Amino acid sequence: MTTDFGYRDSYAAAKKGVILSRCLQARILDLRHGIEPRDITDGALFLAGAVPHFSRGTIHVAVVDPGVGTKRLPIVAKAAGQIIVCPDNGLLTLLAQLHPLEEARTIENPEFMLNKVSATFHGRDIFAPAAAAIASGRGVEDAGERLDMIELLDPPRPRAHGESRVEGQVIHADRFGNLISNVHRSMLNEEAIIATRIGSVSLPSLLRTYGDAAPNEALALIGSSGFLEIAVNGGNAQRTLKLGRGDAVEVNW
Amino acid sequence: MTTDFGYRDSYAAAKKGVILSRCLQARILDLRHGIEPRDITDGALFLAGAVPHFSRGTIHVAVVDPGVGTKRLPIVAKAAGQIIVCPDNGLLTLLAQLHPLEEARTIENPEFMLNKVSATFHGRDIFAPAAAAIASGRGVEDAGERLDMIELLDPPRPRAHGESRVEGQVIHADRFGNLISNVHRSMLNEEAIIATRIGSVSLPSLLRTYGDAAPNEALALIGSSGFLEIAVNGGNAQRTLKLGRGDAVEVNW
Amino acid sequence: MTTDFGYRDSYAAAKKGVILSRCLQARILDLRHGIEPRDITDGALFLAGAVPHFSRGTIHVAVVDPGVGTKRLPIVAKAAGQIIVCPDNGLLTLLAQLHPLEEARTIENPEFMLNKVSATFHGRDIFAPAAAAIASGRGVEDAGERLDMIELLDPPRPRAHGESRVEGQVIHADRFGNLISNVHRSMLNEEAIIATRIGSVSLPSLLRTYGDAAPNEALALIGSSGFLEIAVNGGNAQRTLKLGRGDAVEVNW
Repeated sequence: MTTDFGYRDSYAAAKKGVILSRCLQARILDLRHGIEPRDITDGALFLAGAVPHFSRGTIHVAVVDPGVGTKRLPIVAKAAGQIIVCPDNGLLTLLAQLHPLEEARTIENPEFMLNKVSATFHGRDIFAPAAAAIASGRGVEDAGERLDMIELLDPPRPRAHGESRVEGQVIHADRFGNLISNVHRSMLNEEAIIATRIGSVSLPSLLRTYGDAAPNEALALIGSSGFLEIAVNGGNAQRTLKLGRGDAVEVNW
Repeated sequence: MTTDFGYRDSYAAAKKGVILSRCLQARILDLRHGIEPRDITDGALFLAGAVPHFSRGTIHVAVVDPGVGTKRLPIVAKAAGQIIVCPDNGLLTLLAQLHPLEEARTIENPEFMLNKVSATFHGRDIFAPAAAAIASGRGVEDAGERLDMIELLDPPRPRAHGESRVEGQVIHADRFGNLISNVHRSMLNEEAIIATRIGSVSLPSLLRTYGDAAPNEALALIGSSGFLEIAVNGGNAQRTLKLGRGDAVEVNW
Repeated sequence: MTTDFGYRDSYAAAKKGVILSRCLQARILDLRHGIEPRDITDGALFLAGAVPHFSRGTIHVAVVDPGVGTKRLPIVAKAAGQIIVCPDNGLLTLLAQLHPLEEARTIENPEFMLNKVSATFHGRDIFAPAAAAIASGRGVEDAGERLDMIELLDPPRPRAHGESRVEGQVIHADRFGNLISNVHRSMLNEEAIIATRIGSVSLPSLLRTYGDAAPNEALALIGSSGFLEIAVNGGNAQRTLKLGRGDAVEVNW
């Protein structure tokens, strides 16, 4: 369960109640309820990092839904062996870049919804019952019509300049202040890197782990998901370098 | 599990451990541990929103307990098909307004407690073992004496003025800044509403969902629990209107 | 599951996914993901408070790991009837003071790890698969070599002065602002206490619970884990007294 419902209101609890009242044997895990309010980009990034690690057939209910009750469709999709129930508003953009979508369908079947669907809380009224239906053994193909395309965001992409330079962007600052970029290791000649430039800093060759830099010193490395990351050993790169989401990173080799 | 224990201390974890060590097959869900410290009103509102959605016989352990170790009683109650274990201090006020209490009993049976009960942590020493006892198959009637009355708060209630005006209060601002009032749709003639006044703002007829207002514009609607709600489409009504819990709302039709 | 991964990033979710993809029947509980970043002392205190309450054989995965990818060892340990998988960096210090370690082993067996182990995310690549292996029935003795000693922090310890005075320290301020010290009741003659001094305040004999003091008045009591605690009834001792972790407490009897 991944939402922007936060930890203060009863919305996530209501969703859990609806799932369990329709599929008592369901085992529910909270992945994150703190997606930034209505921030589809933040949700998309989180899902791309979290979803692929689960076992085949896991059902993910992902709700960041600023357009609730408008024309945007509720959908169920398959990717990376997982089943994801969510609004069709771009939430699956980054997951689908890494793991091609196997199938996507609208949720139209009334048995995949509460009897009475409100205009403002589809997490409770559509997404939770749809997940419960699938968890109870209903096929994804029973949800509704197949979709040829889903909505996609247009996230910033790194650009290669010749064969020895890539320009990308910071796409996330994590809890430790590590600045994670959209530059994947597959775009680089790792061994030959001579400089990673970010803000006013230039870092030499990549290190293997945080502790390989001197304490409180900045470093560049390939993070645990394969993307270039700038960190400060024992410190917080986001605060020290005063950089964050959207800032440019350039790698030369 | 709903508490004001927060997310930093080991209190909620200790409670989980006690439940599982007495009923290993129990499945524990966190609803919210961030009830404002000692804020029974906040807890009562959360429980009213969350509890009724679960399947019959679900056991809720709710602990917001500023009077721990004093004369206030530990109780187990039944309402909305649910079983709630909590201190008798008003936590059930709003739930009981919507779903009449079927039964309430004190927890006196030593088998519903740890052998040694501290004076300051009944969540661990009484409420968790009582929940585990019931989850293990003990009847609610084994807990202790039946209570004729439980403690109730005296929350602000909306007032009807003639047949075309209601005055109520904001009782909660949610994560999105939506201002939720205590005015239920059953008190209104929805179709005929001509003005909803809050602070210095007057809003025309109700809309169906957030996206039906222009971006960043305020609107009034009936929220997903049936109560009048003031929101800003894509924004935060609490911050924009500088209003919150306790502020007056007036509806005219 | 106890980590310093926080609630914003996908790291904790990835760990859950890895555990479930290797042991689908595992039941996962979040204890706390909000350990202060890289703060081993905070983690050690939390584990000592939380771990012992669980049923025998519960597996705890505890990750606060500033030295990830360096020489520090990944280990599995047994204490208080529990199995704890964690880095060997002092995280078990306070737990082991209260519950002697029964066994500790390095994690060397490749079947206790992912095929490919990154240098920066052993939570996902070593600790989660090791926990899943044990949850699936592998013995702790299969993890690796037995260790004679584990790393221990050197936390501040209370000092007894003669038979009527103890000096200790505040080791934690909880969510309610209660100041919890490292002075255990076993070091005191509780009945005879005439003064507890903290900051510029001197408190008379111990009370039994918070509500035994007048509203907003400071008090000293023995908290629910047996340690001396300073609180303000209905208030916040940390803020009122402007004291916290590290500040001195003196008890006289």
